[in-house]
Order: sequence, then C-alpha cells, then structure tokens
Amino acid sequence: MEKINLAQAFTAFSDYWSPRVAGDINTFQIKLAKFRGTFDWHHHEHEDELFLVIAGTLRMHFRDRDIDVDAGEFIIVPHGVEHCPEALGDECHVVLLEPNTTLNTGHVTSDRTVHTPLRI
Amino acid sequence: MEKINLAQAFTAFSDYWSPRVAGDINTFQIKLAKFRGTFDWHHHEHEDELFLVIAGTLRMHFRDRDIDVDAGEFIIVPHGVEHCPEALGDECHVVLLEPNTTLNTGHVTSDRTVHTPLRI
Repeated sequence: MEKINLAQAFTAFSDYWSPRVAGDINTFQIKLAKFRGTFDWHHHEHEDELFLVIAGTLRMHFRDRDIDVDAGEFIIVPHGVEHCPEALGDECHVVLLEPNTTLNTGHVTSDRTVHTPLRI
Repeated sequence: MEKINLAQAFTAFSDYWSPRVAGDINTFQIKLAKFRGTFDWHHHEHEDELFLVIAGTLRMHFRDRDIDVDAGEFIIVPHGVEHCPEALGDECHVVLLEPNTTLNTGHVTSDRTVHTPLRI
C-alpha cells in the first residue's frame, strides 16, 4: 500500500491514448492517460466512465453537443452514450475511473485499442 | 450529463465527515468529503476505498504506520485493512471512490455514521 503522486505518475509515460493502470478498487480501476488530438467515436456497452482532468482541457464530443472539461473538473459518460474525446491545445492529462472490463475504444476495435493496459 | 468543478462543489457544503455523492459510475460512486480532526478507526468488510486529496493533507493512520497524502496524491485502502483518517492542519478536502455500498464508518456504527449520503 503506497500513495501515488499524480503529477509524478504522469511523468512516467509519454504515449497518447494508452491508459496506464494506477490502482484497483474492487472491480474498478484508476487509470492515467495522456490525450493529444482527437480519438475515435465509440461507446461502452456496459461501462460508465469518469474523466477527471488533471492538466489541459478535454473537449468531450457527444452527438448533440460538446462539453469542455478543464483541470479540476470531471464528467461521467454513462454506458451506451457515444462520445469522442479531444485534447484542446497541446495535450491533456486525464484520470479515468471505470470498471476493469473497460476497453479504451469501447465497442470499436482499432489500432488504438489497448487490450491489456500497462501498470504505472 | 454535466461536468462538475471540484473546487466549486466543495463550496456547496461545510460539514465534516459527511461525504456528498457527486456521481455514479455503475455500482461505484464518487463522493466529496471535508475532513477535520481525527475520524474513527474502522475497516470495510468488502469495499476498497480510494482517497484522492484535493486540498490540505490527509494523514492515514494504519496499525503499523502512517501515510501522509498531500493534494494531488491518492491512496487506496484495501478492504479489511483498519485505518483512521486524520486531517492535518485546518481541514482537508478529499475525493472518495468506492462501491456505493460503502458506509463511511465501515464496520462500526457511531454518531458519525452516514447511512444515506446527500447528493451535491
């Protein structure tokens, strides 16, 4: 059992759209991810997802609107809701909270799908 | 679906040791809590708990050691592990991530037990 410093943990990796598992809470996981540019449209059949922005701004696109999430803010995307994350500016750092069954690309498989995320 | 600004949400309540539910992620909840002074020793039979410190310093006492968790740091306390949270200094603001079955006082019932936490 150790504490984790978020700022420090984000220096431990540099690739984008490749979440790192930073801890397990029962069947849930806390993951850290760096976003740059725009991801793929997808939804998750069963899993809700919490996005807490640590640095930068995340624009979450939905089919009917966009929501800009700044550092110190979070949004929960319910399962079944199509969304497409985009990092505004250079990049953004995001903490994800979601069931450990969650695939980053949801119902879509692409070359950005990470089946077994690395651990911090 | 709305974003939540943590700093703003923490201004919405002022009582201590009384977590507010700020969102549901499947069977999990994100809760906000203000800590002041020292809580009660307890453990959770089944639930792991993540404590992410937003402001101030949380000293988490365990039977064999203490861990000081500062703003921007988190710690996960596994189920079954006895712990006693203490706010160092004036107060600390904490984001909790845990199953929605989690009672704040764990296996102990006291006048600080919150059976049905309010929502932000």
